[in-house]
Amino acid sequence: MGKGILPQPLIRLIEQFERLPGIGRKSAQKLAFYVLNLSAEQAQAFATAITDAQQNIHNCRICQNLTDGEICAVCDDPARDKSTICVVEDTRYVVAIERTKEYNGLYHVLHGLISPMDGIGPDEIYIKELLERVKQGGIKEIIVATNANVEGEATAMYISRLLKPLGVKVSRLAYGIPVGGDLEYADEVTLYRAIEGRNEL
Amino acid sequence: MGKGILPQPLIRLIEQFERLPGIGRKSAQKLAFYVLNLSAEQAQAFATAITDAQQNIHNCRICQNLTDGEICAVCDDPARDKSTICVVEDTRYVVAIERTKEYNGLYHVLHGLISPMDGIGPDEIYIKELLERVKQGGIKEIIVATNANVEGEATAMYISRLLKPLGVKVSRLAYGIPVGGDLEYADEVTLYRAIEGRNEL
Repeated sequence: MGKGILPQPLIRLIEQFERLPGIGRKSAQKLAFYVLNLSAEQAQAFATAITDAQQNIHNCRICQNLTDGEICAVCDDPARDKSTICVVEDTRYVVAIERTKEYNGLYHVLHGLISPMDGIGPDEIYIKELLERVKQGGIKEIIVATNANVEGEATAMYISRLLKPLGVKVSRLAYGIPVGGDLEYADEVTLYRAIEGRNEL
Repeated sequence: MGKGILPQPLIRLIEQFERLPGIGRKSAQKLAFYVLNLSAEQAQAFATAITDAQQNIHNCRICQNLTDGEICAVCDDPARDKSTICVVEDTRYVVAIERTKEYNGLYHVLHGLISPMDGIGPDEIYIKELLERVKQGGIKEIIVATNANVEGEATAMYISRLLKPLGVKVSRLAYGIPVGGDLEYADEVTLYRAIEGRNEL
């Protein structure tokens, strides 16, 4: 409504922006007008970044972290401690934990959390792949770094019950992170304390 | 910082989103992850919408409104009253005023407002083109529909002094719109009242 007066290519662009998470109609319009003011080169660079990322980014063969190669930068780093795996919901949390500069182990990215309410069970996320990694041996500790909400707790409990019988230590981030809060928004110090004070499950 | 762990194509995409107005680092990351989950077709449609809009949208030859043709949908509409021109800051306000369904005249889009503080004088916006339109004759009234802030007032006064000597009526939106507020966010009724109660300058 009210968009009818705008030319079609602009409407299509506004609609594309409107689909993005957290972007409403007014914001989409503002972003579209911004694009109109770009140079042809800038617009092309933006468009290429979108198709390029969509085409070339996939999951690391080992840890399911995002990468444009076969294995990700963390798994590929010989200096990392291969006996510890930090399990996270998605790649945003890898970025957040790397920012603390205090963790030197590997990761495992679940790409989701167990959520019976949303019909997401253990098979819908990358838990099977984590189990395989542990079975291959050499892993001493699994740090479950999911958010302190219902889904995060459920996922941590499930992983703990699954992996403890294999003789691996399973720990959970300390409740330094605010309960109900989002791990991604924790500052470096809080996140560091949470890693240091992790508790065995 | 902290992005170093992400693959290059993803970093490039995040940086593109970060340049958008009102999008910070966290939002840019969220939007980039959203793009990764698109299908190849969806990503291509998004990318094409960007280059397409940038390439094909330009100013209407008559009123400087955005169009993908030579003249815009309003100027091209034979049912519009060609004797009245509503002067707006940019195309967003054309959309807002069209939403009221109460205005049936033409527009003139300035693509900015006079702002001595920012070094924007009358020559930096499309005032010269408005003057030419009035000089060509047939215009009875100019409604200046700029925001009720310093730049909006300055621009309205400038246009009034420029065009009144030509024998055209110059009016201003009534102060139904909240002073200091943004015209784009006014509801339909307020905007309609403001058009109805417009005052001659």
